[in-house]
Amino acid sequence: MARTGRRPGGADTREAILTAARQAFAERGYDGASIRHIATSAGVDPALVHHYFGAKDQLFLAAMEAPVDPATLIPQVVAGGVDGMGERLVRMFLSVWDSPAGRTAAALLRSAVSHDWSARMLREFLTTQVLRRAMKDLQLDPAEAPLRASLIASQMMGLAMARYIVRFEPLASAAPETVVAAIAPTIQRYLTGPLSSSGP
Amino acid sequence: MARTGRRPGGADTREAILTAARQAFAERGYDGASIRHIATSAGVDPALVHHYFGAKDQLFLAAMEAPVDPATLIPQVVAGGVDGMGERLVRMFLSVWDSPAGRTAAALLRSAVSHDWSARMLREFLTTQVLRRAMKDLQLDPAEAPLRASLIASQMMGLAMARYIVRFEPLASAAPETVVAAIAPTIQRYLTGPLSSSGP
Repeated sequence: MARTGRRPGGADTREAILTAARQAFAERGYDGASIRHIATSAGVDPALVHHYFGAKDQLFLAAMEAPVDPATLIPQVVAGGVDGMGERLVRMFLSVWDSPAGRTAAALLRSAVSHDWSARMLREFLTTQVLRRAMKDLQLDPAEAPLRASLIASQMMGLAMARYIVRFEPLASAAPETVVAAIAPTIQRYLTGPLSSSGP
Repeated sequence: MARTGRRPGGADTREAILTAARQAFAERGYDGASIRHIATSAGVDPALVHHYFGAKDQLFLAAMEAPVDPATLIPQVVAGGVDGMGERLVRMFLSVWDSPAGRTAAALLRSAVSHDWSARMLREFLTTQVLRRAMKDLQLDPAEAPLRASLIASQMMGLAMARYIVRFEPLASAAPETVVAAIAPTIQRYLTGPLSSSGP
């Protein structure tokens, strides 16, 4: 049955909003999608979207079933500045992936590998929710920051793949401290070190 | 229709052998699987398996649809020893992924993320076909080599994810030389550098 007009409240409405939101974020990106447009697609009033989900970033996290809220975690990683941030980032990453939220994170990564729209959502998540927030508090050269961020993303996605998805030993079973000691210097170099042999 | 007994030659026989091989390698691992057992499962003579596919490593590459033969590529990477090997490895990796073989490699990685048996095949491939061959020619401490190998695998899988699958910019569009300059030092450290702040 086709549905038309404004919907009543309830689980059905929530799901309709989330479906419309997934489509909008995947097609238009985070910045291009609007609550107004999502509400229209779902056949509800924009106020109802705000009522259920709050601001756009919260709707985005709900739509992509994000395992954690970067707005909560990132301040803990960037606090203290870039010194030691590689270590804090790897430690935070492991604490999320080793917790029950790790199953949600693995599902997200699996989906991004299999579906283009899901890969787009993951890119948007990393760019707008993680990188943009972290950049606000760090003093990185804006010309280099995007490459640094994508290098960090490459090592962190690879750590997730090797440790939790493909389960390549001994990394899959290594103690968190072993992983932090081995990988934190990589993240620190991607963050603040030279990106080529010739220069900073 | 159930098939029994010895099969005649032809494409049908090749496919039956490959199906039996995939199951055997996924269940028993590379070392545990035998040509004899695979031949029995496929209902053919072991000599026919050798005739079609050669030795076990060649059958394994065919069964997992490997994009390249490590026996050909690894000597080029390890030639010259560990000095500069990080750079040679990243350069070789990019040349494969940027070539038509990259599509096959991406399919392999996607499959490993979605299916446990495929993840097992990828682990076996990295361990027995890549690492074991490379180790023969390098003088790494055997106690550390497996962790070093899995750290290298984490960064290389992450590079494939970020550049070719999730397509995280600017890494996805960066010139190969930019990628080599940024990532080769990581591989070199995982290969020969200290793995913890306190140790060798």
